[in-house]
Amino acid sequence: MSIGICIFGAGRIGKLHAANILATSRARVVSVVDVNLDAATALAAASGARAGTNVEEALAFDDVDAVVICAPTNLHVHLILASARMGKGILCEKPIDLDMMRVDACLSEMERYAVPFAVGFNRRFDPTIARMKRSIDEGEIGNVEILIITSRDPAPPPVEYVSTSGGYFRDSTIHDLDLARWMLGEEPISVSAFGSNLVDPEIGEEGDFDTAITSLRTATGRLCQINNSRRATYGFDQRVEVFGSAGMMQTMNQPETGLLRFGTGATAAQDPLKNFFLERYEESFRKELDDFLDAVEAGHAPAVTGEDGRQALKLADAAELSARTGKTIAL
Amino acid sequence: MSIGICIFGAGRIGKLHAANILATSRARVVSVVDVNLDAATALAAASGARAGTNVEEALAFDDVDAVVICAPTNLHVHLILASARMGKGILCEKPIDLDMMRVDACLSEMERYAVPFAVGFNRRFDPTIARMKRSIDEGEIGNVEILIITSRDPAPPPVEYVSTSGGYFRDSTIHDLDLARWMLGEEPISVSAFGSNLVDPEIGEEGDFDTAITSLRTATGRLCQINNSRRATYGFDQRVEVFGSAGMMQTMNQPETGLLRFGTGATAAQDPLKNFFLERYEESFRKELDDFLDAVEAGHAPAVTGEDGRQALKLADAAELSARTGKTIAL
Amino acid sequence: MSIGICIFGAGRIGKLHAANILATSRARVVSVVDVNLDAATALAAASGARAGTNVEEALAFDDVDAVVICAPTNLHVHLILASARMGKGILCEKPIDLDMMRVDACLSEMERYAVPFAVGFNRRFDPTIARMKRSIDEGEIGNVEILIITSRDPAPPPVEYVSTSGGYFRDSTIHDLDLARWMLGEEPISVSAFGSNLVDPEIGEEGDFDTAITSLRTATGRLCQINNSRRATYGFDQRVEVFGSAGMMQTMNQPETGLLRFGTGATAAQDPLKNFFLERYEESFRKELDDFLDAVEAGHAPAVTGEDGRQALKLADAAELSARTGKTIAL
Amino acid sequence: MSIGICIFGAGRIGKLHAANILATSRARVVSVVDVNLDAATALAAASGARAGTNVEEALAFDDVDAVVICAPTNLHVHLILASARMGKGILCEKPIDLDMMRVDACLSEMERYAVPFAVGFNRRFDPTIARMKRSIDEGEIGNVEILIITSRDPAPPPVEYVSTSGGYFRDSTIHDLDLARWMLGEEPISVSAFGSNLVDPEIGEEGDFDTAITSLRTATGRLCQINNSRRATYGFDQRVEVFGSAGMMQTMNQPETGLLRFGTGATAAQDPLKNFFLERYEESFRKELDDFLDAVEAGHAPAVTGEDGRQALKLADAAELSARTGKTIAL
Repeated sequence: MSIGICIFGAGRIGKLHAANILATSRARVVSVVDVNLDAATALAAASGARAGTNVEEALAFDDVDAVVICAPTNLHVHLILASARMGKGILCEKPIDLDMMRVDACLSEMERYAVPFAVGFNRRFDPTIARMKRSIDEGEIGNVEILIITSRDPAPPPVEYVSTSGGYFRDSTIHDLDLARWMLGEEPISVSAFGSNLVDPEIGEEGDFDTAITSLRTATGRLCQINNSRRATYGFDQRVEVFGSAGMMQTMNQPETGLLRFGTGATAAQDPLKNFFLERYEESFRKELDDFLDAVEAGHAPAVTGEDGRQALKLADAAELSARTGKTIAL
Repeated sequence: MSIGICIFGAGRIGKLHAANILATSRARVVSVVDVNLDAATALAAASGARAGTNVEEALAFDDVDAVVICAPTNLHVHLILASARMGKGILCEKPIDLDMMRVDACLSEMERYAVPFAVGFNRRFDPTIARMKRSIDEGEIGNVEILIITSRDPAPPPVEYVSTSGGYFRDSTIHDLDLARWMLGEEPISVSAFGSNLVDPEIGEEGDFDTAITSLRTATGRLCQINNSRRATYGFDQRVEVFGSAGMMQTMNQPETGLLRFGTGATAAQDPLKNFFLERYEESFRKELDDFLDAVEAGHAPAVTGEDGRQALKLADAAELSARTGKTIAL
Repeated sequence: MSIGICIFGAGRIGKLHAANILATSRARVVSVVDVNLDAATALAAASGARAGTNVEEALAFDDVDAVVICAPTNLHVHLILASARMGKGILCEKPIDLDMMRVDACLSEMERYAVPFAVGFNRRFDPTIARMKRSIDEGEIGNVEILIITSRDPAPPPVEYVSTSGGYFRDSTIHDLDLARWMLGEEPISVSAFGSNLVDPEIGEEGDFDTAITSLRTATGRLCQINNSRRATYGFDQRVEVFGSAGMMQTMNQPETGLLRFGTGATAAQDPLKNFFLERYEESFRKELDDFLDAVEAGHAPAVTGEDGRQALKLADAAELSARTGKTIAL
Repeated sequence: MSIGICIFGAGRIGKLHAANILATSRARVVSVVDVNLDAATALAAASGARAGTNVEEALAFDDVDAVVICAPTNLHVHLILASARMGKGILCEKPIDLDMMRVDACLSEMERYAVPFAVGFNRRFDPTIARMKRSIDEGEIGNVEILIITSRDPAPPPVEYVSTSGGYFRDSTIHDLDLARWMLGEEPISVSAFGSNLVDPEIGEEGDFDTAITSLRTATGRLCQINNSRRATYGFDQRVEVFGSAGMMQTMNQPETGLLRFGTGATAAQDPLKNFFLERYEESFRKELDDFLDAVEAGHAPAVTGEDGRQALKLADAAELSARTGKTIAL
């Protein structure tokens, strides 16, 4: 029997998850909920699902086995808890919330419910990144000593987005902080960050950064450097490099095609990089769904848990504080 | 309304096409025909399609708008003509037939029917190769002067396959000969080939080659070199290089992931290449189907026509003759 | 007339400079001075030069137009000033000294002498790094926003070396700090560093680090990350990446040869990286000498000045302090 | 004692060899001979050597241990024999002669003389190509099965050069044919070539080709493809790929620097390739000289012999004949 899924949020990410659910025979969309009923109806129609605006009504149906939460961040905690109370498995887009106290309260209540609860740090599911992690775990490069993460967006978001994003570290660097915890295999205990406003003056006027570097150190001395920019003219720049006592590994960027051009003045020029996360992490979203469906079917924990979501936010908070105060933060 | 498709042949390629049809909302599998009824039934079940062993019965249904021919090569001509007589659009895996007289007869009769008829040279639809062709057509490297095609399989097929394959040039090099015609933009008029038996002595005992090089020359002097092997220990090696008066382009091979490894004794080592054509040309088969569905919907000719199939076979015949006789063949 | 040069220090670097002088027709070695007379004599013999142990005697000769200082660091200031007083041009290996007060005093006295005074940060002269700087200056990537420097040695030095090296930041990171100042085009005003002892416990027992990351921020918000290790099993890892408002540039590592290997289990594997700085920066030392000879001939300042040496040490001191105290240092 | 060398020919290649001799302590230029006395004098001056126009006079000096022949091709045989008669070691630029009968006669007489006789196929000495050969010999890729050689010049020579060059195959492809024999480890027994005139119509008016492809087959079935053009807009394109039963190896082209550029519309763009053979094979010429000096010192045969020169010409003659007649040539 396929898993019945209710999607909260009929926007871009909701549509992506719906398409991935459609392409698998393991699950089906049975319900779409959005405050915008037209959007919900349009997305539901393609799947033969119910559309609605009321969360509790949607969760009352027995054919809803699990939910995928793609609503705005400020609704996440409410949707997580409402779904958990009804015994539904939960895949929630990151972050759980932008406020650590609300996250703590959410996770505290979640301890009462035995439902699978996954947080959508999709990059862990990218085949190249997952292969890197597996190679680390197999000891291929010995002990991890230095981790370098490069994450640069192709273009800055609209300033309206920035103003509700929780700030650059909580909105964007948080992805890299989750990867860092995973790859380092240890929790960071020191965080130092510098932030700048170099890309868009309007972002600066909102009091946010658009360019940042973050350093982490674990208790055993493992080191990590993250660099971020809101604007890379050559496309979505996503690289991880891990250096260890017995070797080093890097993930390569992905150009749009595998064509190399040799002309006057330049050789071996590749196509531009895949534009943004929907193109670059297309496969990751599919594998993240697979992992979630595995968890729902088996009733076990998914690969990325609520606690992972909390730890990443804690690091993002520390990076933000460091960049604001000019001090190194001890955790 | 989605296009109803009958699949002839429930083997590996039939399954691949069925999966691609399932993933698109433009078409649906309505019928699967195979001499092995169990195989037909198994594949049909997944699509809610009819299963059968009789070609004419299957073609009599009105909900069959088009057929995809994945049956053994010796059945192709019969299936093409039977489908055309019933007014069905046709996507036939290469080759049309291994015998040029039968191909000529087939194409001659096909002139009477106004159905879309596509031959499955899927490599033209690979995004990187298609981008290369588009760049050539846009004049990016000026006039095409030299074309180099490398096509090496990961491992030789069973010798039973070889004995009915029509020989290495008609079975395998024919893909490269189709690409050559397309990329050169002109018909070759001279063909010279050398064949060797270096990989598997049993292939030699069947009288076939497993290693070959082929040279082509067009009327205006454009040159092409193709090299083939039945066994590349590092995976499926598929590269095209086109050199022109204003530059050069190459397609890169595709490793399984984008991980680079730096260890003692070697650096920048990539994962093995994608193993074989189902992995390497996964996207090509999807785009080939799209092109065919476009042709069926619009009633126009597909990108790769019966005449393309005929010309590629003509070149393969010439290469075979050259390798057998040690002579350059004029066309 | 060729430039007469006295080399102070007949060790590995002295020999390197001597060979480079021999290969140019612009200069000749006329004198070699070392406390080890045998070493001085051996090196002098190959050039037909005088050998000696006394600095002042060596500087008294009129055919000495310039000196190259390759003696131990604690002798640098004395040799610089002695040479300057005699009106000789000076190329001094980095650092000027490990103690900032001695450096200040040295540079203060040097203001009295009009001799060319170059400090040996040879990496600036590497053709690839120099091309990067020129491209930045020509505006190719717009404003510099993020700089990433990777510098990892193939193997740790003997612990005896470590104990007199001034510590990891002053001994090794100082090269990267010089590059950072040059590439950023602005002076850093904030420094944050983490150091670890992961490679060799004996280095830790000496109170030094062998793995470190350093962050810099300039007044306008330009950011820099440096990562260092004393041991990279795959060879000398030397990369610079500069990210700007209009693009990005990277310098590639240099394998021993340009051979790519494709075997079972790995593809595109390159040869190991050139082992260490003598191999990797072979060309840089030659071009550094050229620049120095230009300065001596023209009487103008060389590309890397005493002030550059001082600023790099200041940053190294700050990085050391940050790593020791866990605080971000403001300059 | 250093080896005294007489250089015949004070042109571009003569100067290159003179500079390489100057840079080694093993040899010295003692004499320069050229019909243009001014050219000979200018080159001789830099080395403190004698200058002259008379071959026999030059060879009469006892301090001439060996000769390097860089004179026009039609003088090679005379200079080789004259030098051999005087007991001098000989390094002769390729080819020995453009006429096979004269080459046969030369080599026949040379059997009488016990002097080291090297032919200047410098590419064998390129560190990357030499490493490839060594890896083949060590069995790294098993049996050699397919060899692909790409050799394309940056720009066509003046048409006056073409008219005395012996034709494209004897002038240029001959380098690749020498490499092919060396890498294949067997003598080709079949040759097929196509030539075209696509680059410069004036070259066609001289009756020569400027674009060509050549196929070789050995007795055991090893195959080789060579492709040549007189004009590659992206620089001097020099690649060797060898495919075997246990793997594959490729030599990479060499860009001017190791800088990668990522901008709008293209990523990972490298600098243009090194322009031509003086830049690309700079190191090869040095190592070729080393090998020759080894042979002179030890009195043994150099790495590339007169017989190698003869075999390469034989293959070039066959390729020319094949391209002219449209027939495959058996050897």
